Amino acid sequence: MTTMLDVTDISAGTCCAPLVREPLSAAEADQLATTMKALADPARLRLLSIVAASEGAEACVCDLIEPVGLSQPTVSHHLKILMNAGFLTRSKRGTWAYFKLVPGALDRVSQLFVGS
Amino acid sequence: MTTMLDVTDISAGTCCAPLVREPLSAAEADQLATTMKALADPARLRLLSIVAASEGAEACVCDLIEPVGLSQPTVSHHLKILMNAGFLTRSKRGTWAYFKLVPGALDRVSQLFVGS
Repeated sequence: MTTMLDVTDISAGTCCAPLVREPLSAAEADQLATTMKALADPARLRLLSIVAASEGAEACVCDLIEPVGLSQPTVSHHLKILMNAGFLTRSKRGTWAYFKLVPGALDRVSQLFVGS
Repeated sequence: MTTMLDVTDISAGTCCAPLVREPLSAAEADQLATTMKALADPARLRLLSIVAASEGAEACVCDLIEPVGLSQPTVSHHLKILMNAGFLTRSKRGTWAYFKLVPGALDRVSQLFVGS
């Protein structure tokens, strides 16, 4: 298992202007790089895409383990990184935890790279 | 200096449907994660944003070294990763190398995350 990333919450939406418009400051680049690190992992991208493509952009953790073929603790680790980065929120209903895409979080990433 | 990443050329534009539309396959997620790794570094994000915000989306390497405060070999290393990932092309004119943003390369990243 990798070390937990100290990621920046993309849902805060404070960083940055689109890259084509103006150069990033050192602080903005550090902040954005940590967010991009949360996305730079195949398991996390798959988990995020499964949740995002689910009805209501929400999925039970019980439906996330089998598709990615990883252990439950490893899946939980990746989901936690995506939560810390502001891409997912977690709620508990009955036995299971449900993970929901934060509205606009992926769009904020999208807007950073638009316009080239 | 970090190891050279084996990145996927985003300019090929073969990967993937937007994450909110359908889950990524394992192969698509691997491909996309390597592209995201090229972007998950503060120096590379700054270099890319400087080039992207320059006139004609092109910059001389001589104008890239001072703003990021890194050595010329380190800057060249990062520029090579961005080239391998399909974000930049390089041309030599006189003494200097010029790096140009590949048209549409950032837009292809943008499109992957749109629609949340």
